[in-house]
Amino acid sequence: MKLTKPTLLTDKEKCLNNIRKMANKAKKHNLIFRPHFKTHQSKDIGRWFATFGIDKITVSSVDMALYFAQDGWKDITIAFPLNINEIERINIMARDIDLHLTVLNPEAIDALNERLHYDVGIFIEIDTGGDRTGIPYTNTKEIRQMKEKISASPKLHMEGLLTHSGHTYQAKSRKEILKIHEETKERLMGVKEKIREKDEEILISTGDTPSCTLSDHFEGIGEIRPGNFVFYDLQQYKLGICSPEEIAVCLACPVVAKYEERSEIVVHGGAVHFSKDSFREEDQSVYGYGVILTDKDWSIPERKFILAKLSQEHGTLYVNPGIMEKINIGDFIGVLPVHSCLTADVMGSSTEVASGQHHIHMPK
Amino acid sequence: MKLTKPTLLTDKEKCLNNIRKMANKAKKHNLIFRPHFKTHQSKDIGRWFATFGIDKITVSSVDMALYFAQDGWKDITIAFPLNINEIERINIMARDIDLHLTVLNPEAIDALNERLHYDVGIFIEIDTGGDRTGIPYTNTKEIRQMKEKISASPKLHMEGLLTHSGHTYQAKSRKEILKIHEETKERLMGVKEKIREKDEEILISTGDTPSCTLSDHFEGIGEIRPGNFVFYDLQQYKLGICSPEEIAVCLACPVVAKYEERSEIVVHGGAVHFSKDSFREEDQSVYGYGVILTDKDWSIPERKFILAKLSQEHGTLYVNPGIMEKINIGDFIGVLPVHSCLTADVMGSSTEVASGQHHIHMPK
Repeated sequence: MKLTKPTLLTDKEKCLNNIRKMANKAKKHNLIFRPHFKTHQSKDIGRWFATFGIDKITVSSVDMALYFAQDGWKDITIAFPLNINEIERINIMARDIDLHLTVLNPEAIDALNERLHYDVGIFIEIDTGGDRTGIPYTNTKEIRQMKEKISASPKLHMEGLLTHSGHTYQAKSRKEILKIHEETKERLMGVKEKIREKDEEILISTGDTPSCTLSDHFEGIGEIRPGNFVFYDLQQYKLGICSPEEIAVCLACPVVAKYEERSEIVVHGGAVHFSKDSFREEDQSVYGYGVILTDKDWSIPERKFILAKLSQEHGTLYVNPGIMEKINIGDFIGVLPVHSCLTADVMGSSTEVASGQHHIHMPK
Repeated sequence: MKLTKPTLLTDKEKCLNNIRKMANKAKKHNLIFRPHFKTHQSKDIGRWFATFGIDKITVSSVDMALYFAQDGWKDITIAFPLNINEIERINIMARDIDLHLTVLNPEAIDALNERLHYDVGIFIEIDTGGDRTGIPYTNTKEIRQMKEKISASPKLHMEGLLTHSGHTYQAKSRKEILKIHEETKERLMGVKEKIREKDEEILISTGDTPSCTLSDHFEGIGEIRPGNFVFYDLQQYKLGICSPEEIAVCLACPVVAKYEERSEIVVHGGAVHFSKDSFREEDQSVYGYGVILTDKDWSIPERKFILAKLSQEHGTLYVNPGIMEKINIGDFIGVLPVHSCLTADVMGSSTEVASGQHHIHMPK
């Protein structure tokens, strides 16, 4: 493969290792492993999961569910609150596959009762502290009413309680992440005990990458749905979740200009390639959209070279003179992205599955 | 058209008005009008430009040039520094259309001399103060050497000097934008006088939307390349460039959850739909990714309702109780984007050309 333009490189071996580790953890704890495919959105990478025997997946939109259903996936959860305008497109899939939807208000159930033609499983989304979506875990009355409304419906099967503890991404330490994870479990178990009938099965489904990677305690949880772990990224590295060696994607960007006088290199690689998630160092001093790779192990150099500015198509890298002189116009530089999910989303089809290090110039 | 999922609505009438105004201004000042198509990246919208007799366009990548060349555009400038790895794909187009490339270093000329099969026009990119790409305007010697290198090449035709004064986007006032525009003209004219042979034609090409919209002084300039003006957006509105009525795109997002207790509404509409450009009010108090439309004129309400939080697929809107009670689960809310170019880029094919107001719920 010859690189010609900005290309997202996926290191297959690293991805397989990341998948294997998480699959083994799920097995060890007797958990259903339903990885979130919004991170890669790729049929090819989806098939790597299948080689580990994984046959249940999570997605975050009806579009994504259709995409993977077309590739043969037969058991899909859409872990995003039902958009009642899409029930027609849900019917297309619900006939042929095991489809699971996420609801959090009675309007959604009413719309399903009215327009759904086939059976689906239903998760009630619970907000355990993330403050984004879900019925607040304290609101047991409303959750119980939802469960009853679901049970009363001929086509809907009450499956369980689902949460995404997205606030682990804002945590300042591994300890804080583990605390959120413990809290999440406790709150979900509390809800479950309050709403279940005797002997009733209610599945607890959780699954942010930080908690699933760090924790070894999943008592009460039946299913995990992490997604980002397949690639990891700088955000996860900075949270202490992964090592640099586990980051499995980099964006290969061609150098188009060099400015020695201001220690800057400009690449074709902008907001339309990286998206615009950024990071700060602990001292708030450095702000950037990515870090340049300088050696074949994709390790992060101590003195970091930062993707410091982004416009629509341009990326500006800060480098020191030692690196500057090793980089030529036309070289492909590898940049580790801050948030791999968004980078993979904007790059779409311009993704190459490869051992990235063979194709990019390592200025060390 | 029935909306079912997050959709970018383009108000055709507003777009046509925006195009007409800019085309008339170019005509009045005897300028070549070569609009930048990176904003919309749409064949359909490209054809609206053609109805005004426009036949020269600007793009920012080889991919985009190929896309529009396939739709019949015959005169295209790629206003991004040449990526020397893409010369093979440039050859595909250079045979059939008038192609103009942007260069700023001798390596690019060497690579073209070696691998280009057909004639192309060349612009030298000049940095007039934007500090992104281009040879600094003060570096006359280097610019003259580049010109001579281009003239010595059999396939390359020296066309002119090209700049993008992107620093107008950081300006704090209309006055400051006009000052940058005057400075840009002066600096480019200075370079031109220093490098031209007697009677030599050197085209001056500029063209950021802020300068082109506000200024009425284009002496010395031969060509303008604005792009954003076709849609405008909140960023341009906050810079004082456009009125709210001129903003021609909004993202229609379905409501999936309501939280009266925290005055929040959650829509399907996240970073993968809006991208992540944000704005601040002058007092730094409010931070957001978009503003909700409340009436059919797409005016911006005095008390703004803000798209305050974005994750990959979720958008969280802050609203007051008066608006909350008028919005139901499943309604489509219109959100004006902060940066229409990036929003249009991530939305890709999910764009509908329509008079938007007929399809979205206006809670006023």
